[in-house]
Amino acid sequence: MTAFRVSVHITPRRGILDPQGKAVEGALHSLGFAGVKEVHVGRYIVVETDAETQNAAEAEVKAMCERLLANPVIEDFEIESVAAR
Amino acid sequence: MTAFRVSVHITPRRGILDPQGKAVEGALHSLGFAGVKEVHVGRYIVVETDAETQNAAEAEVKAMCERLLANPVIEDFEIESVAAR
Repeated sequence: MTAFRVSVHITPRRGILDPQGKAVEGALHSLGFAGVKEVHVGRYIVVETDAETQNAAEAEVKAMCERLLANPVIEDFEIESVAAR
Repeated sequence: MTAFRVSVHITPRRGILDPQGKAVEGALHSLGFAGVKEVHVGRYIVVETDAETQNAAEAEVKAMCERLLANPVIEDFEIESVAAR
């Protein structure tokens, strides 16, 4: 078994309302950041897990996203990186 | 002016209690993911902004993090990528 560090991006699906992103966008405009066109707010999750291989670690974290970490109705997830520790 | 897409990771500082991460860790164990050693939950923010250069876009988003997006007392931020659109 090797320890892997897997990081995941979970983002609101395209076309789904992102009220948090809109709120941040408004706040940035109020602070004077006039160039801001759009903001999306998602989650960044880092999981440290033991697995036999890098592929196994990635598959396991994918299963975690599907079962717990992401809401597939409104969110997309993407494994950003998988690294042995 | 060019449109840039800048993405940022905001994570709880090392050594600061991460109750959300601990809760997710416990839930993953309950679901049978026994290999999970540690989980950290942060935010992933994508800002689309107009700027003269890539460096200017990065500096602007860094200022946004310092003034609004991250809480410097308990969070670290890191510019993940800056890309022209």
